[in-house]
Amino acid sequence: MVSRIGREIEISPVELASQIAKKVEINLASGTPDPKVMPIAEIKETYNEVIEEYGSKVFFYPGAGGQEELIKEIENYIPNLNLSLNGNRIVVTSGAQHAIELLSKYFLENDTIAVENPTFIETFTPLKLRSNVVLPIGLDSKGIIVDELETVLKIVKIKLLYVIPNCHNPAGVNLCEDRRKRLVELADSYDFYILEDDPYKPIAGETPKPIKYFDKSGRVIYISSFSKIIAPGLRIGFILANEEIAEKISLIEQMDFSTSTINQYVVARLLKKGIVKNRMNYLYEHYANKMKILTDSLLDTGFTDFNRPSCGFFLLLDLKKDSWKVFNEAIKMGLSFVPAKPFFLRGGDTMARLSISVATEDEIKKGVKILKSAWDRV
Amino acid sequence: MVSRIGREIEISPVELASQIAKKVEINLASGTPDPKVMPIAEIKETYNEVIEEYGSKVFFYPGAGGQEELIKEIENYIPNLNLSLNGNRIVVTSGAQHAIELLSKYFLENDTIAVENPTFIETFTPLKLRSNVVLPIGLDSKGIIVDELETVLKIVKIKLLYVIPNCHNPAGVNLCEDRRKRLVELADSYDFYILEDDPYKPIAGETPKPIKYFDKSGRVIYISSFSKIIAPGLRIGFILANEEIAEKISLIEQMDFSTSTINQYVVARLLKKGIVKNRMNYLYEHYANKMKILTDSLLDTGFTDFNRPSCGFFLLLDLKKDSWKVFNEAIKMGLSFVPAKPFFLRGGDTMARLSISVATEDEIKKGVKILKSAWDRV
Repeated sequence: MVSRIGREIEISPVELASQIAKKVEINLASGTPDPKVMPIAEIKETYNEVIEEYGSKVFFYPGAGGQEELIKEIENYIPNLNLSLNGNRIVVTSGAQHAIELLSKYFLENDTIAVENPTFIETFTPLKLRSNVVLPIGLDSKGIIVDELETVLKIVKIKLLYVIPNCHNPAGVNLCEDRRKRLVELADSYDFYILEDDPYKPIAGETPKPIKYFDKSGRVIYISSFSKIIAPGLRIGFILANEEIAEKISLIEQMDFSTSTINQYVVARLLKKGIVKNRMNYLYEHYANKMKILTDSLLDTGFTDFNRPSCGFFLLLDLKKDSWKVFNEAIKMGLSFVPAKPFFLRGGDTMARLSISVATEDEIKKGVKILKSAWDRV
Repeated sequence: MVSRIGREIEISPVELASQIAKKVEINLASGTPDPKVMPIAEIKETYNEVIEEYGSKVFFYPGAGGQEELIKEIENYIPNLNLSLNGNRIVVTSGAQHAIELLSKYFLENDTIAVENPTFIETFTPLKLRSNVVLPIGLDSKGIIVDELETVLKIVKIKLLYVIPNCHNPAGVNLCEDRRKRLVELADSYDFYILEDDPYKPIAGETPKPIKYFDKSGRVIYISSFSKIIAPGLRIGFILANEEIAEKISLIEQMDFSTSTINQYVVARLLKKGIVKNRMNYLYEHYANKMKILTDSLLDTGFTDFNRPSCGFFLLLDLKKDSWKVFNEAIKMGLSFVPAKPFFLRGGDTMARLSISVATEDEIKKGVKILKSAWDRV
């Protein structure tokens, strides 16, 4: 007999689809940023620079909470995300996934939480495995339906709400500003925390202000990542939280001490050089162009039941047929995508998550044609 | 109200002493490997090589359980640790600390566990914060006192035993082979798991065979690290465990996805080049020489109540006076060490952990003189 986590952990359907995607020609499954626009030469140069400049120091154990140099650079960077410290503190993490694992460990012990329906299955797992009750709140083209949340809050006490405000994974929507403000008001009235998971903001173009922007009582914990704007393989992200929570999360990091020291120096240097900031608009346009090719191709092919994402990698398409059946046909013809049912706590059987992040323009067009053929066969 | 982990997490006394150590001249506190013998040029060259050879692939998300290339190289490497796969599997982790966090999450939920007294406070924390009862088992110059463990087992059922078999931190002892065999017999008879935490083995010289070597039923989980033999800032270690446990730990890694992809490629390449293997004996001798200077200096100064470590960084000295009081005097005179009370579940008030890892030979000699002066003042 092992722990609840040991008993209930399962392979992520995203991981599974990614493994299958490696074996087929066209990958509309993966959420990995486009390798063709990763700043490989700059990262390589920066590894050399930080080793030459700091020597063995970049190879020491990481300090709890993050390297000073990186924290300072992140403080200078966050105005680009419409944020300021404002009495809060930065905690460096091994990416946004690690941040959510740390926050789950801190907050949750058989609690009641609320999440968007659908939500991102991988970040949801650490929250779910430490909660007794998970309340799914509907999502529309303006993000989480705050009225629905309020109805729930009137009868159920929740510990926290988990929200992806920009370029939602898998739904592709941005949460509108009005609802962001109302979420903070509700958190204050109904005494809960908000985990604002915002890894796409650096490549999201114009978006409403962060939920954290409206937070005056320290109830919003903002989570960011350098995975989309630099590269996921470095495993560097951060949390912006009030002093008390930031201090505790730093201490909880001592339990895994997983954040590479040298990679922290590399990200600090890339921030200092302005490489991160300079890529923001370029990457937004790069992915927006690819997304337009996907939406145009879908419409040309006769698929119309999908949201129109304004940013990010993902589009949620209602196939109106069992998406696993369509998936099985598509795989045979060389196309992988993610059947989106596992992202939903209720419904979602006919939904497919299509990603434009790694596929080329031609592959996107070809992928949609295959999708149509697969769909016809089901 | 937050989780038990959120309520009970505290700053590690090792972290605290390390922070203080940065401000004083002589550091006999830190467990960081000696920066003067880190293979900095080789690591730098290897970063360039893997980026040139693999390109963007080294910057993708890490796969669950570790990169294939690294797993293969670790399989080739483990005979140097007196281990073979033998039906077991490798899981790559972000260092040994992360490995123990993963294993704690997998196994423990308000269970009863046993640990050595003293044990390493930082790896102990994730175990402790998920246990209801922790049984401290005495340690002598041959390691954990197995008779004492057996007495306990006759009356209390435990879920797991946590052991540091080589170059014990903080006690500096090696567990003798007879006791290793008996631990496995006891695990089989009394139905518990053994976490064998062995990060020092690569620099330990000749040691008895691993506890895992005697394991036939998959009850021993072996934990290793490249922190001492290469550098801690890469955050790469691994677990060797039976198929079922290895598979589950891989899945639990999806909850944090913290292990840097590029650093995995770097360690794989360093292993392939033979750089890891070639450093084993050299580093053993490097640290053994420094340890001899420490023990000689202590004896010359009149300190005699300490074990004679055969390997590693640490020596446990009984000051016969409150070690925090001696510490406070020592700090004023420019010396930092770690008062070892927090490593003990019972006793230990007069114990000091002295480390030879980062101090030079002259600093070790000078440090012992300061220790004597500080001791005289208490």
